[in-house]
Amino acid sequence: MSAPMEDVMDLAEKLRAGDRRALARAITLVESGRTDHRARADALLEAVADPERQALRIGLSGTPGVGKSTFIEAFGCMLTDQGLRVAVLAVDPSSTRSGGSILGDKTRMERLSREPLAFIRPSPSQTQLGGVARRTRDAIALCEAAGFDVVLIETVGVGQSETIVAEMSDLFVLLLAPAGGDELQGVKRGIMEIADLVLVNKADGDLKAAATRTVADYAGALRLMRKREGDPEGYPMAMPVSALDMHGVDTAWEAMQVLAEFRKETGFWQARRTEQARGWFEDEVRLGLLRRLQHDPKADAAIETLRSDVAKGTRAPSAAAAQVLDILLPK
Amino acid sequence: MSAPMEDVMDLAEKLRAGDRRALARAITLVESGRTDHRARADALLEAVADPERQALRIGLSGTPGVGKSTFIEAFGCMLTDQGLRVAVLAVDPSSTRSGGSILGDKTRMERLSREPLAFIRPSPSQTQLGGVARRTRDAIALCEAAGFDVVLIETVGVGQSETIVAEMSDLFVLLLAPAGGDELQGVKRGIMEIADLVLVNKADGDLKAAATRTVADYAGALRLMRKREGDPEGYPMAMPVSALDMHGVDTAWEAMQVLAEFRKETGFWQARRTEQARGWFEDEVRLGLLRRLQHDPKADAAIETLRSDVAKGTRAPSAAAAQVLDILLPK
Repeated sequence: MSAPMEDVMDLAEKLRAGDRRALARAITLVESGRTDHRARADALLEAVADPERQALRIGLSGTPGVGKSTFIEAFGCMLTDQGLRVAVLAVDPSSTRSGGSILGDKTRMERLSREPLAFIRPSPSQTQLGGVARRTRDAIALCEAAGFDVVLIETVGVGQSETIVAEMSDLFVLLLAPAGGDELQGVKRGIMEIADLVLVNKADGDLKAAATRTVADYAGALRLMRKREGDPEGYPMAMPVSALDMHGVDTAWEAMQVLAEFRKETGFWQARRTEQARGWFEDEVRLGLLRRLQHDPKADAAIETLRSDVAKGTRAPSAAAAQVLDILLPK
Repeated sequence: MSAPMEDVMDLAEKLRAGDRRALARAITLVESGRTDHRARADALLEAVADPERQALRIGLSGTPGVGKSTFIEAFGCMLTDQGLRVAVLAVDPSSTRSGGSILGDKTRMERLSREPLAFIRPSPSQTQLGGVARRTRDAIALCEAAGFDVVLIETVGVGQSETIVAEMSDLFVLLLAPAGGDELQGVKRGIMEIADLVLVNKADGDLKAAATRTVADYAGALRLMRKREGDPEGYPMAMPVSALDMHGVDTAWEAMQVLAEFRKETGFWQARRTEQARGWFEDEVRLGLLRRLQHDPKADAAIETLRSDVAKGTRAPSAAAAQVLDILLPK
C-alpha cells in the first residue's frame, strides 16, 4: 500500500506533476498510523513543500438533507468547466460509524467524479479528532503541491469538526436548507461565528419563498455581529442558491472570489496562512511531546491519579501539574 | 509583600475563615511571576482545595459605555442585601495600557466596595493572556475557598478574554447598550455563542423603546442558534435591565438561578466543572513542559529557525515538529 523510502522522491515528483493516482497514494501514506509510514510521510511533505503553490481552501459545512452532495457536484463542475482543478476532501470523524454514507456521496457526485480536473477523497477510517485534523492538513498540503486551484473541505458538522475545518480553510461556507419559523434553531452554536457565507440551498420550486425568508433571517442575525476585521462591507453574507437549477451558484462563487481577493490585497490572507502554519507547528510539537513523554507506565499511573484528584476537586490543577512535570522531567 | 513558606498555612487558615485581607494577600501571591512565590502559591492552593466550597461563577462581558460598573454595583448590592457574599474579579489583558480605568471602576462602585460581604479585586498588571487566565483561575479558587457565594468575573472583552472568562465560568452574561438600527453590528464574533443571558442595559427613560427593540433583535438572533444541550427551553435568553432604576436586575438574577439549578439537576453543572478542572490541569502540564524544555538557548535558536521556515511555507509543520522533538528530547 505505502511506498518504501526510496520511492518517496518518485512519488513526490509524480505528485508535483499533478498525477491523481500519486496524490491518492500520498494521502494514504499520510493517513497511516504506523510510525515508519509517518517518517516517510514527513519526508514526502518536506519534498513537496512549496509556498508558491496555493489553492483556495474552502471549508463547507452542511448537515445531511441540505443537499450538500448536489451542491458540491454543481459547484465543482462549474469550476472544472472554467478549467479549474478541484479537490474535494471529506472530514467526518464519525465516518467509521456511518459507514457507507461517504461512498454514497461520491457515487451521487457522478459527473464531478468523472471530471479529469477533479479529485474526490472520502473520509479516512480514523475516528480520533486530532488524527483527522492532522490528516486533513497534510492532505490539503498534498493537493496544493499537486497544483489544485480549489480545495473544498467538507464536513457534516459532527462535534468540533466545523471549527477544525474553518481553522484550515481560507473561507468558510455554511450550507442550509430553507426552514419554516418552527424549524429554525437548527444551526449549531459557534458556526454562525465562523461562516463567511451562508448559502440557503433549494431556493427553487415550492421552497423558493421559504428560502428567501430564511436568507433574510440569517442576514439579520449576521448583521448583529461585528464584521471580521479587514473584511469588506456586507460580509459575512447570506444568499439563496439552487444547486438543482444552478441558480446563484455562480453568484456565490463570485462572492467567495471577492472576499478572497480583498483579503489578499489587505495582507490578511497571507497573515492568516502564516498564523495557521505556526499553529500547526505548535500543535505538532505539543502533541509529539506528550506522546513521547507519556510512554512510561509508572508515570502514566501517577498522572491518572492526579488527573482524577483534580477532577474531584481535591487537588489544585496547578499544583498537580507541577508534580506531573517532576515525574516526566526529573530535575 | 508575599508570605514565606511557614506563613502559607496561617494564610490558608485565615482565608478559609473568610478574612478578606488574607484573600487579597493570597491573590497577590498567586499573581506573582517569581518561581519561589509560585511554589508557595501551589502549596496554598493545595491547602485550601475543597470540593465542598463552590461559588456560582458568573462571567460578565460588556464594552465601555454599556454601564457595566453601574450594573455590577446594582447587581452586587442586591446580592449582598440578600446576605450573599460576592467577589468581583476583573480580567483585562490590556490593563497595563489602559492604566487607571479599573481603579476608576472600583471607585465608581462606591456602595459595593464598602459592603462587608463584598470583595472587589482590580486587574493584575500582567499583559500576557496565558498568565491572566492562570491567575484568574487561581483567584476564583481562592474566593471559593474563602466561602464566597457568587464570583463575578468581568471583562471588557479585549482579544480572547471573553472565551477565557466563559471557560472558567458557570454562566456567561453579555451586557449591551440599546442600539438604533445602524448601530448594531457591535457584538464581537464569537460572543453570541457563549452567552447564556444577553442583558440590554439602560432600559429606562428615553432609551426604553430602543432597549425593547434591541432585546427583540437579539432574541431573534439567539433563536436561530440551537440551544445548548441540556439547557431548558428559552435559553440563551435576552432581556432588558435598568441598573439605574433597578428594573429587571432581580429578574436577571432569577433567570441565572433557574439555569444554574437546571444544570445542577441534570448533572451538566458537575460534568462541566470536572471538565474544566481537567482542562486546567492539562493546560498547566503543557505550558509547564514547554517552559521547562525551552530554556536551552541552542534549542531555542533551532526552534526559531524551524518556526520561521514553517511560517514561510518552506518546511512542512509536521516534519519540522518532529525535528524539534528530536532536539528537545534526544533519543
